[in-house]
Amino acid sequence: MTTLVSTAAMRKPTGSAVGVAVIGCGYWGPNLIRNFFDTPGCRVVAACDANDGRLETISRRHPSLTVTTSFDDVLADPSVDAVAIATPVNTHAPLAKRALEAGKHVLVEKPMTTTVADAEELVDLAERSGLTLMVDHTFVYTGAVRRIKQLIDTGELGNLYYYDSVRINLGLIQHDVSVVWDLAAHDLAIMDYLIEQRPIGISAVASTHFPGGMADVAYLTVHFENAMIAHFHVNWLSPVKVRQVLIGGDRRMALYDDIESTEKVKVYDRGVRWSDDKDEARREALVAYRLGDMFAPVLDQTEALRNECGHFIECIRSGQAPATDGHAGLRTVRMLAAAERSINEQGVVVRVNG
Amino acid sequence: MTTLVSTAAMRKPTGSAVGVAVIGCGYWGPNLIRNFFDTPGCRVVAACDANDGRLETISRRHPSLTVTTSFDDVLADPSVDAVAIATPVNTHAPLAKRALEAGKHVLVEKPMTTTVADAEELVDLAERSGLTLMVDHTFVYTGAVRRIKQLIDTGELGNLYYYDSVRINLGLIQHDVSVVWDLAAHDLAIMDYLIEQRPIGISAVASTHFPGGMADVAYLTVHFENAMIAHFHVNWLSPVKVRQVLIGGDRRMALYDDIESTEKVKVYDRGVRWSDDKDEARREALVAYRLGDMFAPVLDQTEALRNECGHFIECIRSGQAPATDGHAGLRTVRMLAAAERSINEQGVVVRVNG
Amino acid sequence: MTTLVSTAAMRKPTGSAVGVAVIGCGYWGPNLIRNFFDTPGCRVVAACDANDGRLETISRRHPSLTVTTSFDDVLADPSVDAVAIATPVNTHAPLAKRALEAGKHVLVEKPMTTTVADAEELVDLAERSGLTLMVDHTFVYTGAVRRIKQLIDTGELGNLYYYDSVRINLGLIQHDVSVVWDLAAHDLAIMDYLIEQRPIGISAVASTHFPGGMADVAYLTVHFENAMIAHFHVNWLSPVKVRQVLIGGDRRMALYDDIESTEKVKVYDRGVRWSDDKDEARREALVAYRLGDMFAPVLDQTEALRNECGHFIECIRSGQAPATDGHAGLRTVRMLAAAERSINEQGVVVRVNG
Amino acid sequence: MTTLVSTAAMRKPTGSAVGVAVIGCGYWGPNLIRNFFDTPGCRVVAACDANDGRLETISRRHPSLTVTTSFDDVLADPSVDAVAIATPVNTHAPLAKRALEAGKHVLVEKPMTTTVADAEELVDLAERSGLTLMVDHTFVYTGAVRRIKQLIDTGELGNLYYYDSVRINLGLIQHDVSVVWDLAAHDLAIMDYLIEQRPIGISAVASTHFPGGMADVAYLTVHFENAMIAHFHVNWLSPVKVRQVLIGGDRRMALYDDIESTEKVKVYDRGVRWSDDKDEARREALVAYRLGDMFAPVLDQTEALRNECGHFIECIRSGQAPATDGHAGLRTVRMLAAAERSINEQGVVVRVNG
Repeated sequence: MTTLVSTAAMRKPTGSAVGVAVIGCGYWGPNLIRNFFDTPGCRVVAACDANDGRLETISRRHPSLTVTTSFDDVLADPSVDAVAIATPVNTHAPLAKRALEAGKHVLVEKPMTTTVADAEELVDLAERSGLTLMVDHTFVYTGAVRRIKQLIDTGELGNLYYYDSVRINLGLIQHDVSVVWDLAAHDLAIMDYLIEQRPIGISAVASTHFPGGMADVAYLTVHFENAMIAHFHVNWLSPVKVRQVLIGGDRRMALYDDIESTEKVKVYDRGVRWSDDKDEARREALVAYRLGDMFAPVLDQTEALRNECGHFIECIRSGQAPATDGHAGLRTVRMLAAAERSINEQGVVVRVNG
Repeated sequence: MTTLVSTAAMRKPTGSAVGVAVIGCGYWGPNLIRNFFDTPGCRVVAACDANDGRLETISRRHPSLTVTTSFDDVLADPSVDAVAIATPVNTHAPLAKRALEAGKHVLVEKPMTTTVADAEELVDLAERSGLTLMVDHTFVYTGAVRRIKQLIDTGELGNLYYYDSVRINLGLIQHDVSVVWDLAAHDLAIMDYLIEQRPIGISAVASTHFPGGMADVAYLTVHFENAMIAHFHVNWLSPVKVRQVLIGGDRRMALYDDIESTEKVKVYDRGVRWSDDKDEARREALVAYRLGDMFAPVLDQTEALRNECGHFIECIRSGQAPATDGHAGLRTVRMLAAAERSINEQGVVVRVNG
Repeated sequence: MTTLVSTAAMRKPTGSAVGVAVIGCGYWGPNLIRNFFDTPGCRVVAACDANDGRLETISRRHPSLTVTTSFDDVLADPSVDAVAIATPVNTHAPLAKRALEAGKHVLVEKPMTTTVADAEELVDLAERSGLTLMVDHTFVYTGAVRRIKQLIDTGELGNLYYYDSVRINLGLIQHDVSVVWDLAAHDLAIMDYLIEQRPIGISAVASTHFPGGMADVAYLTVHFENAMIAHFHVNWLSPVKVRQVLIGGDRRMALYDDIESTEKVKVYDRGVRWSDDKDEARREALVAYRLGDMFAPVLDQTEALRNECGHFIECIRSGQAPATDGHAGLRTVRMLAAAERSINEQGVVVRVNG
Repeated sequence: MTTLVSTAAMRKPTGSAVGVAVIGCGYWGPNLIRNFFDTPGCRVVAACDANDGRLETISRRHPSLTVTTSFDDVLADPSVDAVAIATPVNTHAPLAKRALEAGKHVLVEKPMTTTVADAEELVDLAERSGLTLMVDHTFVYTGAVRRIKQLIDTGELGNLYYYDSVRINLGLIQHDVSVVWDLAAHDLAIMDYLIEQRPIGISAVASTHFPGGMADVAYLTVHFENAMIAHFHVNWLSPVKVRQVLIGGDRRMALYDDIESTEKVKVYDRGVRWSDDKDEARREALVAYRLGDMFAPVLDQTEALRNECGHFIECIRSGQAPATDGHAGLRTVRMLAAAERSINEQGVVVRVNG
């Protein structure tokens, strides 16, 4: 950590493009490359992967790009200002650490790390070095999630009753990561962005159906200090793809259905009127629930990754904290680690700090 | 319990109609009346309710029916062979007990009782008296659930991975019963019918949002001896109505969507091929999941309650045990009671016996 | 027509129930009976059908009802003030005529008659006798159609571009009536209610797929004096059930999907901005279409037939013209007759008068 | 036309990549470029457009590509073996003609031309020169349309009753082409591929809602020698996007819903049993319609344009006729021209030859 550079030094002069290298060219890396190519103010310099075949594919599409199997070469390249890390989860921490130590800004896939300690170290390292550390919590950059954030912040939903999330599909069952660290990472990150209030505990159950495999079906419950309850269903063994979040508030309720091509967000002016009148007849006489209009706000349709790549470059230039900075990454890892511990301890509630 | 009569005496001679009285004329009672009117081999004799206004409505629709506020009169009427009880939950046990003691066959709304002890007493009483005791687990009598039962029993789904159920809507929040005893009663009864294997434990969490109210959002997890996991989401505060069960098997997977007007059951020839090859490249080379055709079997469209009323009359005549007999009612009450205890004890796993 | 009575005589004194007889107890008749039973201010007196089996079913459900195979007896019964005719289409005209001549108010199934001449005769007869003649254009009494009417009348949709209707399903192919007279009768009646402007011509094509049968698939185009165009697709050979109306206006657009259980009406704040700038670049620079919010208004959920039966009784009492009076029935029959003629003449545009 | 070269000369030796230039870099061109980059056996050589800004965007993404505003330069380049034309419709014919005359293979956007005469000339020119002429009827290369073709060809649907197509959305209203030539071009091309039988006539109606604009809503009916009927609804003023084809056969029926993300094709084992028994009671006693299972076959998910680009290269190499060759393009243009004439002549049936 002797190579730490000053913030001032790192901020690009206006007019000069930020040089970006993409590390990992499997499923997600090519999307990063494509979007950085379309991001103004940035120049895609290199792509790095251990697999020659993947690099070849990249070269065919983007013949101008330097491709390399050496992460060292990337770090040594002075034209590389920032790296975007899209490698297997367990390599996030070491690669991100080395990049920060080499004075590069870092955008890292979710989950940021596999342990709380690693996440804390990265956050610390980035802060001390004055470098931008951003986590690729992609959904935070969608028009849908942005609009829901607005609905909550302006009080349109009122006080929240519950937050219920379902993300299930037939998944490529992974060998190095459970469905919790893979899928729930998305959902906890979305909730972390949407809801100001911090959880106090998590309980979770999971099931593993393949010998030597990791959990492929899991249910997480997140507890808060008040009656709000959050729940997450993640599943790699579902024949159908569902991506739904239901948010119940005492003023309005919202449904976020990411499978819908348009109308991804619906806001319902519905609720319950509670009467604690002791007289049953009088109680029933009161209208028991309120059914009002539904509306689906128009949403920004820009590809999330486009917004995100632009935001990354902008944060590098301005020094502002990204919407999904290292702290957001750390909070998400804390929830994931708590869920994992609960699963191992028969669903006991595990406290989440900070 | 001195009035217990012999089985033989109770079985109706062929050709003579079974006299039925419906107790409770709120929301469900009128449906029972309408369906018993259309059931061959039975004669609707009387309707009983404490509320005069409701009886008036019944009289207007069915001027031939005797209406009364006296349950005693119903029990004393020798032309009444059987009673169908559709009253508030906490009255099920005492009313059913008195009816059985008076030598009447009983069809009782779900949940059968509010305590395991009451349920056990009713089962015992019915068996000793040779009377038919049936619980109104309505969904068991739908074409959809019947077809799924067939899919499971014939092995078309294979070994089950999980059973995931969601029943949410904007509900009339009740004062005398929580969302668990109201909604989850349906779902646990459906699972009890579909799956042979018996649960060993239940954990549950819930949230209560109205002062003096009962739980209005709850999540239940049912544990089995193997890796199969069952989960139930019930919610009275949802702006949208969802009634879905997803059943994942290692041969096929089924989706039961009760909101769909046709195609309520879809069977997916989809699954995951698991490779534990240590070589990542070779592992990835194997096709990781199998995507086959989907099919939606044609379903019997008869109204469930029609089937159920016919089945009740038939069981009275033949002495056979109903598909949803007292034992099914008892098993369901056991699960509900376990869930309630788990909710009160921070989600600890509560054992379910029998 | 010597039996014509004066209007004054026919209007029921307040407090005395209107006696109703239902003629035809096939598919629709029992619904009429059930709803008239629940309609205040009316008394269901008799049910009439040529088929004894049907009458038996009615008797079982409503033992208090007089059932008869004689229409004459119904007409002769002084306690019968009004008849609701739900018989095969070709009998509507003669039965309605005789009922009006006997001094009975008439509610008749759609289509009111099979010829324009018959329809004109009924309208004339009812007007001269001061009796209420109402056509069972059921959908006009739904919360959905009522709300759309409001959207149009208040100008929320603006000037209309088009009206596109699809009503298709796997139908009981009828022997005495084509898909046009059966299904399009609904849709033309809905449009007649919703849109003030009267059509000037209709062209239609159809196809017949069974020997000796009538048209089972048809497409109708309704022309107006301006650029508005209306189109109807009716089909008895569709594997799926679709009931959709799309109404495009220059301010907003509405989708009425009758299959949806809630949100049957959706209003889209969408449209096209037209630029006739000759410069292609400048033209493209203008935002070419406007995508705004969607909203789904809450709708009155009362069963349409309940509203309709109540409206019929109310019109009988007050003498006011029903929302779907004989004139509406006549206009609909005129459109159906024009469509039929166009089908027989290779799709030529047939003028619609009045 | 003196430059015509022999077929033999044009067929590429194995091992040598086919050089492709993409003409027109607006909406569709970039998709062609991206897909040709991923097509083995082909080399993307150049991109051509009159607009410098567009070329700049292309260069940023594909820095290796030659970009030019000169079509002449492209034609003069001997490394260009084939051109893919994605320019405004009215330029298709002249550009394709010049390319063929220069000895280049041609892939041209739909519709192939704006007149039947132009289409005939291109077909003739390609045949005489032995060059591959292919029309970009993209949907023909989807897994969905391919699977439906199989369902029809194997007789699984039986004899066809009707073909009903809806393609509506909020469209960029075009100034140089009507909704018929824009949207219906897709649908007529799909039908042309799926159905062997050739139409004998077309009638159509349309409406134009903007001064100086072209038809934005249209309905086309296609007539065949037997009772089969085809119908197309195309609309640029719809608030919702619908892309559905319903194909009714006497054995089974298929629904192709291109908006669905999975299950785009559903096959229904449903139909009508026709009884012409004169006795109504006996007729009704027969089950009037058959409701069987539905199944949704698994579909090839490859991007259509990927398949198409590969097919184009393969046809150039082998000399085989493309699935969507010039003749298919010509047949589609004939139908479009007939529809246009019918629209101008009040919906009269216009004969379609060939």
